[in-house]
Amino acid sequence: MAGKPARRATGGAALPPEDARTLPARLFAILDAFTRPAPAVSLSLTAISERSGIPLSTTHRLVGEWVTWGGLTRQADGRYTLGLRLWELGMQTPTTRTLRTIALPYLEDLYEATREHVHLAILDGHDALYLEKLSGHRPVHVISRVGGRLPLHSTGVGLVLLAHAPNDVIHEYLSQALQRFLPGTITEPEELRRRLAGIRTLGIAVMSEEMTAGSSSIAAPIRDRTGMVVAAVSVVTRTTAGVEHDHEQAVQAAAQGISRALGYRRAVAARG
Amino acid sequence: MAGKPARRATGGAALPPEDARTLPARLFAILDAFTRPAPAVSLSLTAISERSGIPLSTTHRLVGEWVTWGGLTRQADGRYTLGLRLWELGMQTPTTRTLRTIALPYLEDLYEATREHVHLAILDGHDALYLEKLSGHRPVHVISRVGGRLPLHSTGVGLVLLAHAPNDVIHEYLSQALQRFLPGTITEPEELRRRLAGIRTLGIAVMSEEMTAGSSSIAAPIRDRTGMVVAAVSVVTRTTAGVEHDHEQAVQAAAQGISRALGYRRAVAARG
Repeated sequence: MAGKPARRATGGAALPPEDARTLPARLFAILDAFTRPAPAVSLSLTAISERSGIPLSTTHRLVGEWVTWGGLTRQADGRYTLGLRLWELGMQTPTTRTLRTIALPYLEDLYEATREHVHLAILDGHDALYLEKLSGHRPVHVISRVGGRLPLHSTGVGLVLLAHAPNDVIHEYLSQALQRFLPGTITEPEELRRRLAGIRTLGIAVMSEEMTAGSSSIAAPIRDRTGMVVAAVSVVTRTTAGVEHDHEQAVQAAAQGISRALGYRRAVAARG
Repeated sequence: MAGKPARRATGGAALPPEDARTLPARLFAILDAFTRPAPAVSLSLTAISERSGIPLSTTHRLVGEWVTWGGLTRQADGRYTLGLRLWELGMQTPTTRTLRTIALPYLEDLYEATREHVHLAILDGHDALYLEKLSGHRPVHVISRVGGRLPLHSTGVGLVLLAHAPNDVIHEYLSQALQRFLPGTITEPEELRRRLAGIRTLGIAVMSEEMTAGSSSIAAPIRDRTGMVVAAVSVVTRTTAGVEHDHEQAVQAAAQGISRALGYRRAVAARG
Protein backbone atom coordinates (compact mmCIF):
# COMPACT_ATOMS: atom_id res chain seq x y z
CA MET A 1 0.00 0.00 0.00
CA ALA A 2 2.62 2.49 1.12
CA GLY A 3 4.78 1.54 -1.84
CA LYS A 4 2.06 2.32 -4.37
CA PRO A 5 3.15 5.35 -6.45
CA ALA A 6 0.93 8.32 -5.66
CA ARG A 7 -0.98 9.62 -8.66
CA ARG A 8 -0.80 13.37 -9.12
CA ALA A 9 -3.95 15.34 -8.55
CA THR A 10 -4.53 17.50 -11.60
CA GLY A 11 -6.90 19.98 -10.01
CA GLY A 12 -4.37 22.46 -8.62
CA ALA A 13 -0.73 22.85 -7.70
CA ALA A 14 -1.44 23.71 -4.04
CA LEU A 15 -3.13 20.39 -3.27
CA PRO A 16 -1.38 18.16 -0.75
CA PRO A 17 -0.64 14.60 -1.92
CA GLU A 18 -4.11 13.35 -0.97
CA ASP A 19 -3.67 10.10 -2.85
CA ALA A 20 -1.08 9.07 -0.28
CA ARG A 21 -3.84 9.08 2.35
CA THR A 22 -5.93 5.94 2.88
CA LEU A 23 -9.61 6.05 1.99
CA PRO A 24 -10.62 6.16 5.68
CA ALA A 25 -8.17 9.04 6.26
CA ARG A 26 -9.73 10.92 3.35
CA LEU A 27 -13.24 10.22 4.67
CA PHE A 28 -12.24 11.61 8.07
CA ALA A 29 -10.60 14.65 6.42
CA ILE A 30 -14.03 15.50 4.97
CA LEU A 31 -15.48 15.83 8.48
CA ASP A 32 -12.38 17.56 9.84
CA ALA A 33 -13.01 20.30 7.26
CA PHE A 34 -15.88 21.45 9.51
CA THR A 35 -13.51 22.18 12.42
CA ARG A 36 -10.24 23.20 10.71
CA PRO A 37 -8.85 25.75 10.22
CA ALA A 38 -11.89 27.18 12.05
CA PRO A 39 -15.29 25.72 13.01
CA ALA A 40 -17.87 26.09 10.24
CA VAL A 41 -21.59 25.41 10.63
CA SER A 42 -22.06 24.81 6.90
CA LEU A 43 -19.68 24.44 3.94
CA SER A 44 -20.06 24.26 0.17
CA LEU A 45 -18.64 21.26 -1.68
CA THR A 46 -15.84 23.51 -2.96
CA ALA A 47 -14.98 24.69 0.55
CA ILE A 48 -14.89 21.09 1.82
CA SER A 49 -12.58 20.19 -1.07
CA GLU A 50 -10.27 23.14 -0.35
CA ARG A 51 -10.18 22.61 3.41
CA SER A 52 -9.56 18.87 3.14
CA GLY A 53 -7.14 19.08 0.22
CA ILE A 54 -9.14 16.45 -1.66
CA PRO A 55 -10.01 17.02 -5.36
CA LEU A 56 -13.57 18.12 -6.01
CA SER A 57 -14.69 14.91 -7.74
CA THR A 58 -13.44 12.69 -4.90
CA THR A 59 -14.89 15.11 -2.34
CA HIS A 60 -18.25 14.84 -4.11
CA ARG A 61 -18.19 11.05 -3.86
CA LEU A 62 -17.03 10.91 -0.21
CA VAL A 63 -19.53 13.58 0.87
CA GLY A 64 -22.21 11.39 -0.73
CA GLU A 65 -21.11 8.46 1.44
CA TRP A 66 -21.36 10.59 4.59
CA VAL A 67 -24.80 11.92 3.58
CA THR A 68 -26.11 8.39 2.99
CA TRP A 69 -25.04 7.37 6.47
CA GLY A 70 -26.19 10.57 8.20
CA GLY A 71 -22.79 12.03 9.12
CA LEU A 72 -23.43 14.99 6.83
CA THR A 73 -26.69 16.66 5.84
CA ARG A 74 -27.34 18.42 2.54
CA GLN A 75 -29.29 21.62 3.03
CA ALA A 76 -31.85 23.17 0.68
CA ASP A 77 -29.22 25.68 -0.53
CA GLY A 78 -26.82 22.87 -1.51
CA ARG A 79 -24.40 23.47 1.36
CA TYR A 80 -23.51 20.74 3.84
CA THR A 81 -23.66 20.58 7.64
CA LEU A 82 -22.53 17.93 10.10
CA GLY A 83 -25.30 15.37 10.54
CA LEU A 84 -27.45 14.34 13.47
CA ARG A 85 -26.04 10.79 13.44
CA LEU A 86 -22.72 12.18 14.72
CA TRP A 87 -24.49 13.93 17.55
CA GLU A 88 -26.46 10.81 18.39
CA LEU A 89 -23.32 8.64 18.54
CA GLY A 90 -21.40 11.37 20.32
CA MET A 91 -23.96 11.48 23.11
CA GLN A 92 -23.18 7.81 23.72
CA THR A 93 -19.47 8.32 24.44
CA PRO A 94 -18.85 7.21 28.03
CA THR A 95 -17.33 10.54 29.12
CA THR A 96 -20.33 12.55 28.06
CA ARG A 97 -22.88 9.92 29.02
CA THR A 98 -21.50 9.22 32.49
CA LEU A 99 -19.73 12.37 33.62
CA ARG A 100 -22.27 14.76 32.16
CA THR A 101 -25.26 12.83 33.50
CA ILE A 102 -23.77 12.60 36.99
CA ALA A 103 -22.66 16.24 37.00
CA LEU A 104 -25.78 17.86 35.57
CA PRO A 105 -27.91 18.10 38.75
CA TYR A 106 -24.97 19.71 40.59
CA LEU A 107 -24.39 22.12 37.72
CA GLU A 108 -28.07 23.05 37.87
CA ASP A 109 -27.76 23.75 41.61
CA LEU A 110 -24.67 25.87 40.96
CA TYR A 111 -26.48 27.79 38.26
CA GLU A 112 -29.42 28.46 40.57
CA ALA A 113 -27.10 29.59 43.36
CA THR A 114 -25.09 31.97 41.18
CA ARG A 115 -27.21 32.81 38.10
CA GLU A 116 -24.00 32.95 36.09
CA HIS A 117 -22.39 30.82 33.37
CA VAL A 118 -21.62 27.36 34.72
CA HIS A 119 -19.02 25.27 32.86
CA LEU A 120 -17.95 21.64 32.97
CA ALA A 121 -14.73 20.87 31.07
CA ILE A 122 -12.22 18.07 30.63
CA LEU A 123 -8.60 17.98 29.48
CA ASP A 124 -8.25 16.81 25.88
CA GLY A 125 -4.80 17.15 24.40
CA HIS A 126 -3.65 20.70 25.19
CA ASP A 127 -7.16 22.14 25.41
CA ALA A 128 -10.01 22.48 27.84
CA LEU A 129 -12.93 20.75 26.07
CA TYR A 130 -16.28 22.10 27.28
CA LEU A 131 -18.74 19.28 28.06
CA GLU A 132 -21.52 21.44 29.44
CA LYS A 133 -22.50 25.05 29.81
CA LEU A 134 -25.54 26.43 31.58
CA SER A 135 -26.30 30.12 31.08
CA GLY A 136 -29.01 32.52 32.10
CA HIS A 137 -31.02 34.71 29.76
CA ARG A 138 -28.71 37.73 29.92
CA PRO A 139 -25.32 36.52 31.11
CA VAL A 140 -21.94 38.21 30.70
CA HIS A 141 -20.43 37.62 27.25
CA VAL A 142 -18.10 34.61 27.08
CA ILE A 143 -16.72 32.68 24.09
CA SER A 144 -17.11 29.16 25.49
CA ARG A 145 -19.59 26.74 23.92
CA VAL A 146 -20.47 23.10 24.52
CA GLY A 147 -18.15 21.01 22.35
CA GLY A 148 -15.78 23.97 22.02
CA ARG A 149 -12.14 24.17 23.07
CA LEU A 150 -10.26 26.92 24.88
CA PRO A 151 -6.63 27.21 26.01
CA LEU A 152 -5.55 25.89 29.39
CA HIS A 153 -3.60 28.94 30.57
CA SER A 154 -6.31 31.53 30.01
CA THR A 155 -9.44 29.88 31.42
CA GLY A 156 -10.39 28.92 34.96
CA VAL A 157 -11.25 25.31 34.09
CA GLY A 158 -8.13 25.12 31.93
CA LEU A 159 -5.83 26.21 34.78
CA VAL A 160 -7.39 23.64 37.13
CA LEU A 161 -7.00 20.87 34.54
CA LEU A 162 -3.41 21.89 33.76
CA ALA A 163 -2.51 22.15 37.46
CA HIS A 164 -3.51 18.50 37.95
CA ALA A 165 -2.21 17.15 34.63
CA PRO A 166 0.72 14.71 34.48
CA ASN A 167 4.12 16.41 34.75
CA ASP A 168 5.03 15.74 31.12
CA VAL A 169 1.82 17.45 29.93
CA ILE A 170 2.59 20.51 32.09
CA HIS A 171 6.16 20.55 30.82
CA GLU A 172 5.06 20.30 27.17
CA TYR A 173 2.40 22.94 27.60
CA LEU A 174 4.74 25.44 29.24
CA SER A 175 7.42 24.81 26.58
CA GLN A 176 5.32 26.37 23.81
CA ALA A 177 4.71 30.05 23.13
CA LEU A 178 1.43 30.91 24.89
CA GLN A 179 -1.03 33.38 23.46
CA ARG A 180 -1.64 36.61 25.39
CA PHE A 181 -5.37 37.37 24.92
CA LEU A 182 -5.50 40.38 27.23
CA PRO A 183 -2.88 42.40 29.12
CA GLY A 184 -3.68 40.29 32.21
CA THR A 185 -3.08 36.89 30.57
CA ILE A 186 -0.17 35.15 32.30
CA THR A 187 2.09 33.53 29.71
CA GLU A 188 5.51 33.47 31.39
CA PRO A 189 6.34 29.81 32.20
CA GLU A 190 7.78 30.30 35.70
CA GLU A 191 4.95 32.59 36.80
CA LEU A 192 2.43 30.09 35.40
CA ARG A 193 4.21 27.24 37.20
CA ARG A 194 3.88 29.07 40.54
CA ARG A 195 0.25 29.75 39.78
CA LEU A 196 -0.44 26.06 39.11
CA ALA A 197 1.22 25.15 42.44
CA GLY A 198 -1.06 27.66 44.17
CA ILE A 199 -4.13 26.15 42.53
CA ARG A 200 -3.11 22.66 43.70
CA THR A 201 -2.65 23.97 47.26
CA LEU A 202 -5.86 26.02 47.44
CA GLY A 203 -8.06 23.58 45.50
CA ILE A 204 -9.48 26.45 43.49
CA ALA A 205 -8.48 28.73 40.61
CA VAL A 206 -9.55 32.38 40.54
CA MET A 207 -8.80 34.50 37.49
CA SER A 208 -9.93 37.79 36.10
CA GLU A 209 -9.77 39.46 32.67
CA GLU A 210 -7.36 36.98 31.14
CA MET A 211 -9.47 35.61 28.25
CA THR A 212 -12.46 37.92 27.82
CA ALA A 213 -12.62 41.55 28.97
CA GLY A 214 -15.05 42.08 31.85
CA SER A 215 -15.32 38.48 32.95
CA SER A 216 -13.86 36.51 35.85
CA SER A 217 -13.77 32.79 36.49
CA ILE A 218 -13.70 30.62 39.61
CA ALA A 219 -12.94 26.93 38.99
CA ALA A 220 -12.44 23.78 41.06
CA PRO A 221 -11.29 20.22 40.31
CA ILE A 222 -13.55 17.15 40.06
CA ARG A 223 -11.96 13.84 41.11
CA ASP A 224 -12.98 10.26 40.42
CA ARG A 225 -12.85 7.44 42.97
CA THR A 226 -9.09 7.01 42.44
CA GLY A 227 -8.53 10.65 43.40
CA MET A 228 -7.50 11.62 39.88
CA VAL A 229 -8.75 14.97 38.56
CA VAL A 230 -11.02 14.08 35.62
CA ALA A 231 -12.81 17.40 35.02
CA ALA A 232 -13.22 20.95 36.26
CA VAL A 233 -16.28 23.03 37.06
CA SER A 234 -16.41 26.82 36.95
CA VAL A 235 -18.60 29.87 37.32
CA VAL A 236 -17.89 32.82 35.04
CA THR A 237 -19.15 36.20 36.23
CA ARG A 238 -18.86 39.87 35.44
CA THR A 239 -15.68 41.25 37.00
CA THR A 240 -17.10 42.96 40.08
CA ALA A 241 -15.97 42.88 43.67
CA GLY A 242 -17.89 41.28 46.51
CA VAL A 243 -19.45 38.10 45.20
CA GLU A 244 -16.25 36.09 44.75
CA HIS A 245 -16.26 34.46 48.18
CA ASP A 246 -19.85 33.21 47.91
CA HIS A 247 -19.14 31.87 44.45
CA GLU A 248 -15.97 30.15 45.62
CA GLN A 249 -17.95 28.17 48.16
CA ALA A 250 -20.67 27.33 45.62
CA VAL A 251 -18.13 26.14 43.04
CA GLN A 252 -16.29 24.04 45.60
CA ALA A 253 -19.57 22.54 46.84
CA ALA A 254 -20.49 21.57 43.28
CA ALA A 255 -17.03 20.08 42.60
CA GLN A 256 -17.19 18.08 45.84
CA GLY A 257 -20.73 16.89 45.15
CA ILE A 258 -19.82 15.65 41.68
CA SER A 259 -16.59 14.05 42.98
CA ARG A 260 -18.54 12.21 45.69
CA ALA A 261 -21.09 11.07 43.10
CA LEU A 262 -18.15 9.70 41.07
CA GLY A 263 -17.04 7.70 44.12
CA TYR A 264 -14.32 9.99 45.47
CA ARG A 265 -13.67 9.75 49.22
CA ARG A 266 -11.17 12.27 50.53
CA ALA A 267 -9.72 9.86 53.11
CA VAL A 268 -9.00 7.15 50.53
CA ALA A 269 -7.07 9.16 48.00
CA ALA A 270 -5.96 12.75 47.76
CA ARG A 271 -3.38 14.33 45.55
CA GLY A 272 -1.48 17.57 46.21
CA MET B 1 -19.58 -2.00 -8.57
CA ALA B 2 -22.99 -3.60 -8.05
CA GLY B 3 -22.13 -6.18 -10.72
CA LYS B 4 -18.96 -7.34 -8.96
CA PRO B 5 -19.48 -10.90 -7.66
CA ALA B 6 -19.48 -10.90 -3.86
CA ARG B 7 -16.83 -13.11 -2.35
CA ARG B 8 -18.11 -15.35 0.43
CA ALA B 9 -17.02 -14.62 3.95
CA THR B 10 -15.55 -17.82 5.39
CA GLY B 11 -15.91 -16.91 9.06
CA GLY B 12 -19.47 -18.13 9.63
CA ALA B 13 -22.64 -19.05 7.78
CA ALA B 14 -24.71 -16.32 9.46
CA LEU B 15 -22.57 -13.44 8.17
CA PRO B 16 -24.21 -11.09 5.67
CA PRO B 17 -22.35 -10.60 2.38
CA GLU B 18 -20.15 -7.84 3.80
CA ASP B 19 -17.88 -7.77 0.78
CA ALA B 20 -20.73 -6.34 -1.26
CA ARG B 21 -20.61 -3.24 0.95
CA THR B 22 -18.33 -0.34 0.05
CA LEU B 23 -15.42 0.44 2.35
CA PRO B 24 -17.18 3.56 3.70
CA ALA B 25 -20.31 1.47 4.37
CA ARG B 26 -18.21 -1.02 6.31
CA LEU B 27 -16.51 1.78 8.26
CA PHE B 28 -19.91 3.18 9.21
CA ALA B 29 -21.16 -0.31 10.15
CA ILE B 30 -18.36 -0.43 12.75
CA LEU B 31 -19.84 2.61 14.52
CA ASP B 32 -23.43 1.43 14.03
CA ALA B 33 -22.48 -1.67 16.05
CA PHE B 34 -22.58 0.59 19.14
CA THR B 35 -26.27 1.39 18.62
CA ARG B 36 -27.69 -1.76 16.99
CA PRO B 37 -29.31 -4.05 17.91
CA ALA B 38 -29.14 -2.18 21.25
CA PRO B 39 -26.98 0.70 22.53
CA ALA B 40 -23.67 -0.50 24.00
CA VAL B 41 -21.27 1.68 25.97
CA SER B 42 -18.31 -0.58 25.20
CA LEU B 43 -17.77 -3.56 22.91
CA SER B 44 -15.02 -6.13 22.38
CA LEU B 45 -13.50 -6.51 18.92
CA THR B 46 -15.39 -9.81 18.57
CA ALA B 47 -18.69 -8.17 19.48
CA ILE B 48 -18.09 -5.37 16.95
CA SER B 49 -17.34 -8.01 14.31
CA GLU B 50 -20.49 -9.95 15.13
CA ARG B 51 -22.77 -6.91 15.31
CA SER B 52 -21.46 -5.40 12.07
CA GLY B 53 -21.21 -8.69 10.18
CA ILE B 54 -17.63 -7.88 9.20
CA PRO B 55 -14.93 -10.59 9.57
CA LEU B 56 -12.67 -10.18 12.59
CA SER B 57 -9.50 -9.33 10.63
CA THR B 58 -11.23 -6.57 8.63
CA THR B 59 -12.93 -5.33 11.81
CA HIS B 60 -9.52 -5.12 13.47
CA ARG B 61 -8.16 -2.98 10.64
CA LEU B 62 -11.19 -0.66 10.41
CA VAL B 63 -11.39 -0.22 14.19
CA GLY B 64 -7.74 0.84 14.04
CA GLU B 65 -8.62 3.53 11.50
CA TRP B 66 -11.39 4.87 13.77
CA VAL B 67 -9.08 4.85 16.82
CA THR B 68 -6.39 6.80 14.93
CA TRP B 69 -8.91 9.50 14.05
CA GLY B 70 -10.60 9.57 17.47
CA GLY B 71 -13.97 8.08 16.52
CA LEU B 72 -13.32 5.08 18.75
CA THR B 73 -11.27 4.82 21.95
CA ARG B 74 -9.47 1.70 23.11
CA GLN B 75 -9.84 1.19 26.86
CA ALA B 76 -7.32 -0.31 29.28
CA ASP B 77 -9.26 -3.61 29.25
CA GLY B 78 -9.00 -3.87 25.44
CA ARG B 79 -12.65 -3.04 24.79
CA TYR B 80 -13.71 -0.13 22.60
CA THR B 81 -15.98 2.84 23.22
CA LEU B 82 -17.21 5.61 20.92
CA GLY B 83 -14.65 8.43 20.87
CA LEU B 84 -14.75 12.04 21.97
CA ARG B 85 -14.16 13.29 18.42
CA LEU B 86 -17.70 12.15 17.51
CA TRP B 87 -19.12 14.06 20.45
CA GLU B 88 -17.10 17.15 19.54
CA LEU B 89 -18.33 17.10 15.92
CA GLY B 90 -21.82 16.20 17.02
CA MET B 91 -22.04 19.27 19.21
CA GLN B 92 -21.43 21.32 16.07
CA THR B 93 -24.48 20.07 14.17
CA PRO B 94 -26.75 23.06 13.56
CA THR B 95 -29.80 21.51 15.24
CA THR B 96 -28.03 20.87 18.51
CA ARG B 97 -25.94 24.02 18.38
CA THR B 98 -28.78 26.39 17.57
CA LEU B 99 -31.94 24.83 18.97
CA ARG B 100 -30.36 23.53 22.14
CA THR B 101 -28.50 26.78 22.88
CA ILE B 102 -31.63 28.87 22.36
CA ALA B 103 -33.84 26.49 24.34
CA LEU B 104 -31.60 25.83 27.32
CA PRO B 105 -32.38 28.93 29.44
CA TYR B 106 -36.12 28.23 29.04
CA LEU B 107 -35.61 24.58 29.93
CA GLU B 108 -33.73 25.69 33.05
CA ASP B 109 -36.65 27.95 34.02
CA LEU B 110 -39.07 25.08 33.46
CA TYR B 111 -36.96 22.79 35.58
CA GLU B 112 -36.85 25.33 38.39
CA ALA B 113 -40.60 25.85 38.21
CA THR B 114 -41.44 22.14 38.28
CA ARG B 115 -38.42 20.26 39.74
CA GLU B 116 -39.25 17.41 37.39
CA HIS B 117 -37.63 15.88 34.29
CA VAL B 118 -37.59 18.42 31.48
CA HIS B 119 -37.20 17.10 27.92
CA LEU B 120 -36.46 18.69 24.56
CA ALA B 121 -36.98 16.39 21.57
CA ILE B 122 -37.15 16.54 17.79
CA LEU B 123 -38.69 14.27 15.17
CA ASP B 124 -36.08 12.08 13.44
CA GLY B 125 -37.48 9.38 11.19
CA HIS B 126 -40.19 7.61 13.19
CA ASP B 127 -38.67 8.43 16.59
CA ALA B 128 -38.57 11.21 19.14
CA LEU B 129 -34.84 12.02 19.43
CA TYR B 130 -34.03 13.56 22.83
CA LEU B 131 -31.81 16.65 22.47
CA GLU B 132 -31.80 17.65 26.11
CA LYS B 133 -32.90 16.37 29.49
CA LEU B 134 -32.66 18.19 32.80
CA SER B 135 -33.35 16.17 35.94
CA GLY B 136 -33.26 16.72 39.66
CA HIS B 137 -31.34 14.64 42.16
CA ARG B 138 -34.15 12.21 42.91
CA PRO B 139 -36.59 12.33 40.03
CA VAL B 140 -39.18 9.76 39.00
CA HIS B 141 -37.66 6.91 36.98
CA VAL B 142 -37.83 7.44 33.21
CA ILE B 143 -36.00 5.72 30.36
CA SER B 144 -35.24 8.79 28.27
CA ARG B 145 -31.65 9.95 27.82
CA VAL B 146 -29.96 12.69 25.81
CA GLY B 147 -29.19 11.25 22.38
CA GLY B 148 -31.70 8.45 22.96
CA ARG B 149 -34.78 7.64 20.91
CA LEU B 150 -38.30 6.75 22.03
CA PRO B 151 -41.47 5.95 20.08
CA LEU B 152 -43.81 8.73 18.99
CA HIS B 153 -47.08 7.16 20.18
CA SER B 154 -46.05 6.47 23.77
CA THR B 155 -44.27 9.67 24.85
CA GLY B 156 -45.56 13.20 25.37
CA VAL B 157 -42.98 14.84 23.11
CA GLY B 158 -43.51 12.06 20.55
CA LEU B 159 -47.27 12.66 20.36
CA VAL B 160 -46.75 16.40 19.90
CA LEU B 161 -44.18 15.81 17.15
CA LEU B 162 -46.39 13.23 15.41
CA ALA B 163 -49.47 15.46 15.69
CA HIS B 164 -47.66 18.18 13.72
CA ALA B 165 -45.77 15.91 11.30
CA PRO B 166 -46.56 15.91 7.55
CA ASN B 167 -49.61 13.81 6.65
CA ASP B 168 -47.54 11.11 4.94
CA VAL B 169 -45.43 10.64 8.07
CA ILE B 170 -48.57 10.29 10.23
CA HIS B 171 -50.04 7.85 7.69
CA GLU B 172 -46.87 5.73 7.57
CA TYR B 173 -46.53 5.74 11.35
CA LEU B 174 -50.13 4.65 11.94
CA SER B 175 -49.85 1.94 9.26
CA GLN B 176 -47.35 -0.09 11.28
CA ALA B 177 -48.02 -2.32 14.28
CA LEU B 178 -47.42 -0.14 17.34
CA GLN B 179 -45.93 -1.52 20.53
CA ARG B 180 -48.11 -1.58 23.65
CA PHE B 181 -45.73 -0.83 26.55
CA LEU B 182 -48.38 -0.68 29.27
CA PRO B 183 -52.12 -1.41 29.38
CA GLY B 184 -52.75 2.32 28.91
CA THR B 185 -50.67 2.70 25.72
CA ILE B 186 -52.94 3.73 22.84
CA THR B 187 -52.05 1.75 19.72
CA GLU B 188 -55.31 1.62 17.77
CA PRO B 189 -54.87 3.84 14.64
CA GLU B 190 -58.26 5.58 14.68
CA GLU B 191 -58.09 6.32 18.40
CA LEU B 192 -54.55 7.66 17.95
CA ARG B 193 -55.68 9.80 15.01
CA ARG B 194 -58.39 11.40 17.16
CA ARG B 195 -55.85 11.95 19.89
CA LEU B 196 -53.48 13.73 17.49
CA ALA B 197 -56.31 16.00 16.34
CA GLY B 198 -57.02 16.86 19.97
CA ILE B 199 -53.36 17.72 20.56
CA ARG B 200 -53.35 20.04 17.54
CA THR B 201 -56.49 21.78 18.84
CA LEU B 202 -55.39 22.13 22.47
CA GLY B 203 -51.74 22.89 21.75
CA ILE B 204 -50.69 20.45 24.47
CA ALA B 205 -50.39 16.68 24.98
CA VAL B 206 -51.15 15.09 28.35
CA MET B 207 -50.50 11.40 28.88
CA SER B 208 -50.23 9.08 31.80
CA GLU B 209 -48.80 5.59 32.34
CA GLU B 210 -48.33 4.81 28.66
CA MET B 211 -44.56 4.26 28.52
CA THR B 212 -43.29 3.92 32.11
CA ALA B 213 -45.43 2.90 35.08
CA GLY B 214 -45.94 5.71 37.57
CA SER B 215 -45.02 8.58 35.27
CA SER B 216 -47.02 11.18 33.38
CA SER B 217 -45.99 13.61 30.69
CA ILE B 218 -47.17 17.06 29.59
CA ALA B 219 -45.75 18.27 26.27
CA ALA B 220 -46.11 21.28 23.98
CA PRO B 221 -44.92 22.17 20.47
CA ILE B 222 -42.05 24.55 19.62
CA ARG B 223 -42.39 26.45 16.33
CA ASP B 224 -39.82 28.28 14.24
CA ARG B 225 -40.39 31.59 12.51
CA THR B 226 -42.28 29.90 9.65
CA GLY B 227 -44.76 28.43 12.15
CA MET B 228 -43.53 24.90 11.57
CA VAL B 229 -43.26 22.64 14.64
CA VAL B 230 -39.53 21.87 14.94
CA ALA B 231 -39.35 20.39 18.43
CA ALA B 232 -41.34 19.56 21.55
CA VAL B 233 -40.76 20.29 25.23
CA SER B 234 -42.16 18.23 28.09
CA VAL B 235 -42.23 17.76 31.83
CA VAL B 236 -42.42 14.20 33.14
CA THR B 237 -43.77 13.77 36.66
CA ARG B 238 -44.92 11.10 39.02
CA THR B 239 -48.53 10.22 38.27
CA THR B 240 -50.32 12.14 41.01
CA ALA B 241 -53.32 14.39 40.84
CA GLY B 242 -53.32 18.12 41.42
CA VAL B 243 -50.16 19.52 39.86
CA GLU B 244 -51.09 18.97 36.21
CA HIS B 245 -52.64 22.37 35.60
CA ASP B 246 -49.66 24.31 36.98
CA HIS B 247 -47.35 22.18 34.91
CA GLU B 248 -49.43 22.69 31.78
CA GLN B 249 -49.00 26.43 32.06
CA ALA B 250 -45.28 26.11 32.76
CA VAL B 251 -44.74 23.79 29.78
CA GLN B 252 -46.71 26.07 27.47
CA ALA B 253 -44.81 29.13 28.71
CA ALA B 254 -41.50 27.39 27.98
CA ALA B 255 -42.67 26.28 24.51
CA GLN B 256 -43.86 29.80 23.70
CA GLY B 257 -40.65 31.37 25.00
CA ILE B 258 -38.47 29.10 22.88
CA SER B 259 -40.72 29.61 19.83
CA ARG B 260 -40.48 33.38 20.22
CA ALA B 261 -36.70 33.12 20.57
CA LEU B 262 -36.71 31.15 17.29
CA GLY B 263 -38.58 34.02 15.63
CA TYR B 264 -42.14 32.69 15.79
CA ARG B 265 -44.87 35.32 15.84
CA ARG B 266 -48.37 33.93 16.29
CA ALA B 267 -49.97 36.56 14.04
CA VAL B 268 -47.65 35.78 11.11
CA ALA B 269 -48.13 32.04 10.93
CA ALA B 270 -50.14 29.54 12.89
CA ARG B 271 -51.02 25.98 12.05
CA GLY B 272 -53.96 23.95 13.40
